[in-house]
Amino acid sequence: MGVVASISGEKSKDPSIQPLVDLVDGGMQAVNELILSKAGSNVEMIPEVARHLISSGGKRLRPMLTLALADMFGYRGDGHVTLAASVEFMHTATLLHDDVVDESDMRRGKLAARKLWGNQASVLVGDYLLGQAFKMMVDVGSLEALRILSEASAVIAEGEVMQLGAAHNIATDESRYMKVVEAKTAALFAAAAEVGPVISEAPDGMQQAARRYGMDLGLAFQLVDDALDYGGSADALGKQVGDDFREGKITLPVILSVQRGSDGDRAFWKRCLETHELEDGDLDHAIELIKRTDALADTIERARGFGSTALSALQPLPEGDIRDALAEAVEFCISRVY
Amino acid sequence: MGVVASISGEKSKDPSIQPLVDLVDGGMQAVNELILSKAGSNVEMIPEVARHLISSGGKRLRPMLTLALADMFGYRGDGHVTLAASVEFMHTATLLHDDVVDESDMRRGKLAARKLWGNQASVLVGDYLLGQAFKMMVDVGSLEALRILSEASAVIAEGEVMQLGAAHNIATDESRYMKVVEAKTAALFAAAAEVGPVISEAPDGMQQAARRYGMDLGLAFQLVDDALDYGGSADALGKQVGDDFREGKITLPVILSVQRGSDGDRAFWKRCLETHELEDGDLDHAIELIKRTDALADTIERARGFGSTALSALQPLPEGDIRDALAEAVEFCISRVY
Repeated sequence: MGVVASISGEKSKDPSIQPLVDLVDGGMQAVNELILSKAGSNVEMIPEVARHLISSGGKRLRPMLTLALADMFGYRGDGHVTLAASVEFMHTATLLHDDVVDESDMRRGKLAARKLWGNQASVLVGDYLLGQAFKMMVDVGSLEALRILSEASAVIAEGEVMQLGAAHNIATDESRYMKVVEAKTAALFAAAAEVGPVISEAPDGMQQAARRYGMDLGLAFQLVDDALDYGGSADALGKQVGDDFREGKITLPVILSVQRGSDGDRAFWKRCLETHELEDGDLDHAIELIKRTDALADTIERARGFGSTALSALQPLPEGDIRDALAEAVEFCISRVY
Repeated sequence: MGVVASISGEKSKDPSIQPLVDLVDGGMQAVNELILSKAGSNVEMIPEVARHLISSGGKRLRPMLTLALADMFGYRGDGHVTLAASVEFMHTATLLHDDVVDESDMRRGKLAARKLWGNQASVLVGDYLLGQAFKMMVDVGSLEALRILSEASAVIAEGEVMQLGAAHNIATDESRYMKVVEAKTAALFAAAAEVGPVISEAPDGMQQAARRYGMDLGLAFQLVDDALDYGGSADALGKQVGDDFREGKITLPVILSVQRGSDGDRAFWKRCLETHELEDGDLDHAIELIKRTDALADTIERARGFGSTALSALQPLPEGDIRDALAEAVEFCISRVY
């Protein structure tokens, strides 16, 4: 990955998220405390449901972006912690609603909240967390950060609706799918990154560079996730290999493989993902098809392309440990797939 | 209703919402245009679902409160129109999610959106409208209005979760139920009323009086709605009589009737609302029980009590047509039940 070397100044053999984790460690402890306290409520069930999902971890990549990109511009105060926590709440609310919409059974290696407390509680606790997220943003008092995050909130929902429209339709094309990914995943990465320089009152060019970095990182991240579902290990994925397949999700590896396959292959995809009649061995056959048509390799290639533009976006930002760690985070996201 | 007379200066034989409608007519046209434009999206399904619900009307009482209470303090600008539209979007988003949670078939005399487009679209379009609502609030630029409305958003969701916890449980007591009503219904009336004086920079005492008025009007409104379900006409209600009963909702008329009934009556309520085994004639018997135990009359009495405190809350506000119209709106809400 020579592109990385041109930014970080040295080739990293084994890219890691650890430098980023270490740099924002103090801030993330404050974020985690705030998340636990704001997930509280006197109403039973709200803290249970919220904490089930929150304590099951996840990488907290989005709030780390907010903290790192505020620190990069010498932000003083605790607004970045509050915004980072609100970003994670927006994400958590989306997961709760997603699981209801996708009828998912598992989330982050645990039973999905909707399986434990029902769809109703998942919808309503998601709404609560979203309300709390906006309250926290208001506490910070930056109208510009509020504008960016509320815009992201509407765009994420648009992306989810777009995905619903494309669901179980193997004729979905790549450009439509990429619009879904940009809206439902990358928009929040972009917003999380952008609000860091925004509350630090960094110059407009820096805000836009951070946004571009977050957007491209988010695109790469989602494509790697899509690829892992057909070729990764459960460890790297935090879910079972084949979950997307079993839920009938149309992702980039599928789209590319459908386009390149025979009529018989298309009939196979149609049966599995549209009419949802799964038989033993279907997942293995799907993985085989995806590999044979180079759909997996090309999905990773697209991800690497977005990774490369994410790294370029970092170039105008101030040199130093933080920029190096953000660059390595890109490499790390892509390396998950090997 | 002598209390009304003491404020409006004359006894109104036939209270009407029309004076309020007339006073805010110009503003409401702008609100309705903004609602239609902001419910738009390039993503198919979003405008369809949103407009289905929006065009089916409803009284738009909440946005009228915002407009009237901004006008009362001579507000200049169009921020009150934008806030009024965002209040209506918050309400619409809640209705979409409510129907999913309650598994309702009808809303405002039409098929519920979830019956036409599915639960998934209802959840996601609700999220989109909420995101749009926050974007609009940010456009107005009042952090105080944002604080009030984001707080309402979290409280509404808390109220819905509380209601879920109490659902299908005939042992729910009046104080718990009133907390649900305060959170899920009255909090948005209160916020809608409060933001009028807030963006007009009216004195704090005026803001608090407007909030108190909205809160008590909301409490009265919901109790009247509860009563109508057991004793109204479909016209007054905008839904079918007995909808709450068929959905197993525990409302104040039921709570009072359960407390005052025999063991046999309780077994009846338990069968209908907890185990949900409905037989022909059950609704008629429920209405008969509620009337016999004075539960309907007492629910209306409670509503009248809140109406009376709503009218008192108006007293510190500036005299004039607007205050008179707001007072008559209280009478109108309560008169729906006769």
